[in-house]
Amino acid sequence: MRSSSRGDVDAFIVMDVMEQARRLEQSGRSIIHMEVGQPGTPAPKAARVALADAMERDALGYTVALGLPELRAGIAALYKDWYGVDVDPARVVVTAGSSAAFVLAFTALFDAGDAVGVTEPGYPSYRQILKSLSLTPRAIPTHAADRHVPQMPHETLAGLIVASPANPTGTMLSKEDLRGLIEQCAATDTAFISDEIYHGVQYEGRAVSALEVSDDVYVINSFSKYFSMTGWRLGWMIVPEDHIRRIERLAQNMFICAPHAAQIAALGALSARDETEAMLEVYAENRRLMLEGLPKAGFDKIAPPDGAFYIYADVSELTQDSLAFAAEILEQAGVAVTPGLDFDPVRGHTTLRFSYARATEDIIEGLRRLTDFMAARG
Amino acid sequence: MRSSSRGDVDAFIVMDVMEQARRLEQSGRSIIHMEVGQPGTPAPKAARVALADAMERDALGYTVALGLPELRAGIAALYKDWYGVDVDPARVVVTAGSSAAFVLAFTALFDAGDAVGVTEPGYPSYRQILKSLSLTPRAIPTHAADRHVPQMPHETLAGLIVASPANPTGTMLSKEDLRGLIEQCAATDTAFISDEIYHGVQYEGRAVSALEVSDDVYVINSFSKYFSMTGWRLGWMIVPEDHIRRIERLAQNMFICAPHAAQIAALGALSARDETEAMLEVYAENRRLMLEGLPKAGFDKIAPPDGAFYIYADVSELTQDSLAFAAEILEQAGVAVTPGLDFDPVRGHTTLRFSYARATEDIIEGLRRLTDFMAARG
Repeated sequence: MRSSSRGDVDAFIVMDVMEQARRLEQSGRSIIHMEVGQPGTPAPKAARVALADAMERDALGYTVALGLPELRAGIAALYKDWYGVDVDPARVVVTAGSSAAFVLAFTALFDAGDAVGVTEPGYPSYRQILKSLSLTPRAIPTHAADRHVPQMPHETLAGLIVASPANPTGTMLSKEDLRGLIEQCAATDTAFISDEIYHGVQYEGRAVSALEVSDDVYVINSFSKYFSMTGWRLGWMIVPEDHIRRIERLAQNMFICAPHAAQIAALGALSARDETEAMLEVYAENRRLMLEGLPKAGFDKIAPPDGAFYIYADVSELTQDSLAFAAEILEQAGVAVTPGLDFDPVRGHTTLRFSYARATEDIIEGLRRLTDFMAARG
Repeated sequence: MRSSSRGDVDAFIVMDVMEQARRLEQSGRSIIHMEVGQPGTPAPKAARVALADAMERDALGYTVALGLPELRAGIAALYKDWYGVDVDPARVVVTAGSSAAFVLAFTALFDAGDAVGVTEPGYPSYRQILKSLSLTPRAIPTHAADRHVPQMPHETLAGLIVASPANPTGTMLSKEDLRGLIEQCAATDTAFISDEIYHGVQYEGRAVSALEVSDDVYVINSFSKYFSMTGWRLGWMIVPEDHIRRIERLAQNMFICAPHAAQIAALGALSARDETEAMLEVYAENRRLMLEGLPKAGFDKIAPPDGAFYIYADVSELTQDSLAFAAEILEQAGVAVTPGLDFDPVRGHTTLRFSYARATEDIIEGLRRLTDFMAARG
């Protein structure tokens, strides 16, 4: 069978680690999951109750392409609540996860061959989705010493993707950082895409939305993280007013609509803020345990994350091959972690990402196993 | 905000009709839905029970990218059951609706600029998804006189998409038709993509799968139609063995996974064949009513469909503007129908598609309204 060159993307390494972990579990091993960035908790109870109820009385057929009107209104209200920003619900696009939002945004904004800036380290799928759409990712290396604030390259880019809190570092951009980047992009007709998927999951102050600076940006978010609904595949975008109909036509054709059941559950989740805030307390405790336990185990080159639920560790004194090191930790310690190569193809040979999104007892057990493993490794 | 030229796709007209119908209903009007190709029934009861149960005991996080192993095995078993064909479950890719399957297939197979054949009339989103991925759709007009069997063009294509039963005509390709097309494609390294989304929904004999002819094809199907699960957004692909890992990497990055809740529901649906076969009896009765009632109302240039749940009517003696005619029928008769332009940008000015997927009482009422409308129109 023929194949394309743009289809030759790299594996999403964390998904491969997850599959290896699943196989070990199937063979009877106990594995602590510090690899994948997802809560161990299910969707909020209100979300599940809403869906169970809807399944009794609604056929749950296609929704309109941009999503259930009441869900779009509920998402718009979040912006008032979280940032004091008025967002017209007409600008809210409900998507099949933030993944679908990226596909929609990239096809709406960029033509084949366009160059789009992505930070390194950063979410690996930006690069791979760009490639699969015949776009050219341009790496913008960031540095812990600069709090991972990206510097615009000299080359004029068609777009720039920025995440705050960032994956894998957990660093947040200040309003001034965001304003500087958005203004530089506006000056060169560079589309600014703000990945805000970790908003709400924050420990030091609150994350700033790009919408606090400008309406002429694409903002992407999701119910996966703060609302603990990864597997439901439900995200959203806020797009500029003059792009609503463009995105609607693309969404009609490329996705028809986001999953109806997940939209119903998300509507329930929006009303379950007491439950989601309680999850945040768990992440905060997990973060405290990790910041205390990882250095004791021997992973001492780390920085306290502002948000998200990751710690990005420099392990250059322990390995030059993060892929092999992560495999060794999985096999010997029974802890799944993600090799830094997923986030940074250049410097990720010597980094690991630890996720602390699961239950606190898992974090305690994981840290115990990591401590024993490192002690035995000597 | 900048915008791409590939993002300038046409609206999916039926989705716009659906939105107009929703607005009329919101204003208190009663609308009979003969526009959208979706059953009026919910997912089978076994599907809903399976999900309600899973929500009580599972966090429903990400699944592995290719889908739940037991669901992939269940889908593979369908091929043995329906066609007597052995399919390795490893070749089954669970997707977020057939929509996501098209995006995966097109990016895996084709590079920017490649030409891909699509039949006209045909499912409109093929053309728009191709365009949004910087691919060039090549129209292959088909004709009722040839039972809508496509003829390969002289130009060598990178790919060919064929549907049987077809949307909007309901015609089916014979095994010989399929073999001829697949052999011609193989000779020119043209990827053959078989859209089998209406398999199971058939009235005269059974639909033939491309897998009965060759393993070196992409087959796309979904739980939307036969299993009555449109809004769940769950589909699948069977890919050649040497493309499994390619598709897995793309799926990991572009979608992470198909919705977990929908995968659980689909597993339940696979065991509910008594219920899905009962739905088929409803469609058969609806088809009989439509074939009898539409000509009486004045839509007499129609052909009995082999499968799917559509009737494609030639209305050239009634209008040269199917868009305006459909709007008139919606407004005056309270029946939503789809203008042929959605399926055929050239000849669709003079055709309409009627869907008969809803409950029989809706079909009876819709036919009554259409009869009155046409009588009043004179």
